[in-house]
Amino acid sequence: MNCMHRSRFLIKSLLSRARTITRLGSTLSQPQRPPSLSSPVMSRLETHTTRLCIVGSGPAAHTAAIYAARAELKPLLFEGWMANDIAPGGQLTTTTDVENFPGFPVCSKSYEGILGAELTEKFRKQSERFGTTFFTETVTKVDFMSKPFKLFTDSRAVLADAVILATGAVAKRLSFPGSGEGSGGFWNRGISACAVCDGAAPIFRDKPLAVIGGGDSAMEEANFLTKYGSNVYIIHRRDAFRASKIMQQRALANPKIDVIWNSTVVEAYGDVERGVLGGLTVKNVVSGEVLDLKVSGLFFAIGHEPATKFLDGAVKLDSDGYVVTKPGSTQTSVAGVFAAGDVQDKKYRQAVTAAGTGCMAALDAEHYLQEIGSQQGIE
Amino acid sequence: MNCMHRSRFLIKSLLSRARTITRLGSTLSQPQRPPSLSSPVMSRLETHTTRLCIVGSGPAAHTAAIYAARAELKPLLFEGWMANDIAPGGQLTTTTDVENFPGFPVCSKSYEGILGAELTEKFRKQSERFGTTFFTETVTKVDFMSKPFKLFTDSRAVLADAVILATGAVAKRLSFPGSGEGSGGFWNRGISACAVCDGAAPIFRDKPLAVIGGGDSAMEEANFLTKYGSNVYIIHRRDAFRASKIMQQRALANPKIDVIWNSTVVEAYGDVERGVLGGLTVKNVVSGEVLDLKVSGLFFAIGHEPATKFLDGAVKLDSDGYVVTKPGSTQTSVAGVFAAGDVQDKKYRQAVTAAGTGCMAALDAEHYLQEIGSQQGIE
Repeated sequence: MNCMHRSRFLIKSLLSRARTITRLGSTLSQPQRPPSLSSPVMSRLETHTTRLCIVGSGPAAHTAAIYAARAELKPLLFEGWMANDIAPGGQLTTTTDVENFPGFPVCSKSYEGILGAELTEKFRKQSERFGTTFFTETVTKVDFMSKPFKLFTDSRAVLADAVILATGAVAKRLSFPGSGEGSGGFWNRGISACAVCDGAAPIFRDKPLAVIGGGDSAMEEANFLTKYGSNVYIIHRRDAFRASKIMQQRALANPKIDVIWNSTVVEAYGDVERGVLGGLTVKNVVSGEVLDLKVSGLFFAIGHEPATKFLDGAVKLDSDGYVVTKPGSTQTSVAGVFAAGDVQDKKYRQAVTAAGTGCMAALDAEHYLQEIGSQQGIE
Repeated sequence: MNCMHRSRFLIKSLLSRARTITRLGSTLSQPQRPPSLSSPVMSRLETHTTRLCIVGSGPAAHTAAIYAARAELKPLLFEGWMANDIAPGGQLTTTTDVENFPGFPVCSKSYEGILGAELTEKFRKQSERFGTTFFTETVTKVDFMSKPFKLFTDSRAVLADAVILATGAVAKRLSFPGSGEGSGGFWNRGISACAVCDGAAPIFRDKPLAVIGGGDSAMEEANFLTKYGSNVYIIHRRDAFRASKIMQQRALANPKIDVIWNSTVVEAYGDVERGVLGGLTVKNVVSGEVLDLKVSGLFFAIGHEPATKFLDGAVKLDSDGYVVTKPGSTQTSVAGVFAAGDVQDKKYRQAVTAAGTGCMAALDAEHYLQEIGSQQGIE
């Protein structure tokens, strides 16, 4: 974990995007007015037509773009502008070292693995290389009721024969003094929202760790973290877990796990010498008792929020707001609209699984476009 | 496409594996005799116990190993020795430039993308870095009837709490003069078995191309290739396709596609100046007529052969021999045995989709091992 590097790359990547926007503005083909459109709102927007529109900017979106662009579908990709409060690139830009994306055993720059923002930049360059057109704008509205599908930003409308939704999800985080990024906060310096991604980091080895949550994920992550930490506390605000019985039993039977019931974290404080998380102030919400918990790691396991609000019911979502896809494919409830990555995956949620489904979405879209006869030469 | 580079890397990677075997032989923990085993066959084999055994050597196997090793499962991985007649590393080692694996916009060495064998070597280094133990031996037999599961090579037996099958598949190829690798053959120099992977290569641009096959894949690949080639011939040995009606219609309606019925390729010959494929001699099996077909590309679309014979019914296979998994997961018909990559995927078959399912398999295995209580500290 290396926040200095991360900040540097974020700034660099934002700058490079600003340059890209200018360049695209001057090279993009002239917007066309679609013959069938007469809405006064749309007529004020720059309008583009495309075979395939991709929404998102993480591994799923860019892998879809790489495959679609190599298949000469000339995709348009909306990478958003601080959509979900994070930079284009998705959740990877909020992490530092990525050790588990296959293909990066050691980084070109002395340290091992690759930085999240650096990996994202590689994805983006690769989809750009094959002819993806980018807009650094956030899609705010869609209309999938009739074909071609319509997607809107504040300044643009797109008519698309097929759509890939890859807007991702954001791990929920709690907010208390010391939980944030930057000065005085320990996010990415002991506080994380992904045990699978970050648990193996050296700063957690043989140290006391804590997990906040009470569901299956919290149980599984606590068990998982006992491989690295000396012991693990599960901090839960109620007096019972909502996790499945078997996962509760596994956690409660693990001698390295203790549960702190009816409690919430009120503050995270630092290890002054090392500049990383040093401990937590935990308050019992029933007795009012306050506990000083010396831990080197804190993992939020309180769920994720998929970025699907802008869809406003255009495709079927599950009860947690994730896009429903036909298992083993990326097909949503609307033929011609596909979904890839974390926006449709609440189980695996890894960069490489997102990339895999991005590829699937592009191949599914290509197959669909062939079937409806939307391809170069035979439109 | 660059066969010189490819050969160089293959030799290098074989050498590096030979070194690894020697090293592993001296560092591996002493084999243990399992208490429950009395079979005279097993007593002659070196026996190891492990939480997780992975079989395979491509992107699925190594991504599974990266995740499993980071989760401290200390996986054993059998990468095979010329299993399916290809080197450890799987189908990627039979290709040259890989342009569509996300994360590699330009290669470190002047040309773009990354070589298949080089990418495989990176996967392997990364799973090695986190503590995967490799055996360059082919698993020839398994027994999943009782637990722990048993896997056998000619010299070794493994007892495993969980297994990930990632042995891949091989694209079927026809054999005729000029179809092979090396001197006098045009494999990877105009002849390919993957239009999605190779179709965008510059040597195929605006040139006549040919596809052999009569199923959905052949129709789809022919349509796909019309984006690149000047025109595409489908060569089929019968007078009718077995493809679905809609895919046939799309192919037959495409003005850039012609079908050569009742015909087989008897020879591929070279373009003397460029040293790549120059054309095909095609024979009509009904009339006996011989045709000289000038094409720069030939794509086999005659199916794949999954590497599942060694399983001998231990898990459920479909009618084409692929391992059946529960859609959206990697669970096979046997609890605790998971499958990832092309051995369970006849639809997408890309390196990045294989990697994605490899990650899923490791997370599924980790979850399973937690459930059955097989984890460090609480066995």
